[in-house]
Amino acid sequence: MQKGLLLVISGPAGSGKGTVNAHLLKTGRFVYSVSATTRAPRPGEVDGVNYHYITREDFADRIANGGMLEYTEYCGNFYGTPKKEAEEVLASGKNLILEIEVEGAKQVKSKFPDAILILLLPPSFRAQETRLRGRGTETEDKILERLARTREELKEIDAYDYVVLNEDGEDLTAAEDILAIVRAEQHHLRRNSDVATRYFAD
Amino acid sequence: MQKGLLLVISGPAGSGKGTVNAHLLKTGRFVYSVSATTRAPRPGEVDGVNYHYITREDFADRIANGGMLEYTEYCGNFYGTPKKEAEEVLASGKNLILEIEVEGAKQVKSKFPDAILILLLPPSFRAQETRLRGRGTETEDKILERLARTREELKEIDAYDYVVLNEDGEDLTAAEDILAIVRAEQHHLRRNSDVATRYFAD
Repeated sequence: MQKGLLLVISGPAGSGKGTVNAHLLKTGRFVYSVSATTRAPRPGEVDGVNYHYITREDFADRIANGGMLEYTEYCGNFYGTPKKEAEEVLASGKNLILEIEVEGAKQVKSKFPDAILILLLPPSFRAQETRLRGRGTETEDKILERLARTREELKEIDAYDYVVLNEDGEDLTAAEDILAIVRAEQHHLRRNSDVATRYFAD
Repeated sequence: MQKGLLLVISGPAGSGKGTVNAHLLKTGRFVYSVSATTRAPRPGEVDGVNYHYITREDFADRIANGGMLEYTEYCGNFYGTPKKEAEEVLASGKNLILEIEVEGAKQVKSKFPDAILILLLPPSFRAQETRLRGRGTETEDKILERLARTREELKEIDAYDYVVLNEDGEDLTAAEDILAIVRAEQHHLRRNSDVATRYFAD
C-alpha cells in the first residue's frame, strides 16, 4: 500500500477552503489534522476534535524533540501540528490535510520535504473583496486587515508547489483540482523510486 | 488561455500505449505529434498523417537550426519531432503527445525542460511477458528481444517525471492517471509564475 500524502492547504479569507476541504473529507481518503495547543478548551470544545489540549511543558518538550511539524505562538499560547499523529495517518495510506498559513507551511516543508504545499485563492483580489463584504459579518476594519494580509501572503507564493483558483460557485472544481494533484503526485517518480525493482519482482 | 503541455509518453511493448493514447485523443484536448522522416512513404501512407516526408537536406537543416526537438537515425533514415509544429499545437492550448523512447525523451527534456516525461508500464515484467506471448503474433526471438530491451530501458527510469502502471484490462485508469497528471501540472507554480500579478490585475 502506498503511503498517504501530507497536503498543506493555505488560503486567505474568502478562498472557500472550508467548503473545498469538506469535499475532500467526503471522499474518505483524507484526514484533517488536529492541532495541539496550550490554550485551555473553550466551552463546548472537545479534546482530540477541536484541538489536542496539552501542557506548555509537553509542548516545549515536543518542540525540543522535533515532535512538531510546525508551530506558532499567538496571544501567549502555542499552536502546532504533532508529527507522530501525522506519521500515523500517512502510514495508514490516508492523506493528511494541514490547514495552516504560509509561515507554518514553510516549516512543514523544511521538516518534511515530501509535503505538498497548495495555495487556494479566490479567482481574483476583486472577487475576494466582494466575497468578504458579501458575508456581512465583519467590520470594515477587519475586511481591510484581511485584504492587506492577503497582499503580504502572496509575496510568499513561491513557497508553494501548486496554486488553485477557486472560482465562484465552483468549489467542486477546486476540490477536483486538488484530487488530481494528489493522484499525479502518487505517480511522481520521486515517490516511486523502487518501481523498477518491484517491476521485476512481482 | 493556458498553453498546452508537451507530454512524452514512453512505454515498452505490451504497455498498452496505443489504447491509452486513443483514450486521451478522444477527450479532444490532445494532439498526437506526427514525426518527420527522410524515409520514402510506403504504399498507403499519407504525408502529414503517418509522417511528414521531408528530404535529407531539409532534415539536416532543421537539426542544424535547432528545429528538431529530438531525432534519431534508424536503418539509414532519419526520424524526428519538428519543433515548430509542436509549438503551434501548444500555443493553441492543446496538449501534444510524443510517443518516443527514452533516448528521444531525454533529448526533448534537454531542449524543452517544460516537457512532462511519463513512462507507461505493464503491471509487472511477468505480466508484460504474458501479454507479449498472448498476442501470438511474434516469434520467440522477437519476444525475448523486446523483454531484454525493457530491462535496458528501465535502467533509465530516472529520466522520467512520472510512472504509470497499466493494469490488465484497465486502460481507462492509466489514461485517467495521465489526465490527472496534466491537470495537476497545469496548477504547478512553475507554470503559474505570474499568478500573483494576475490576481491583483483582474
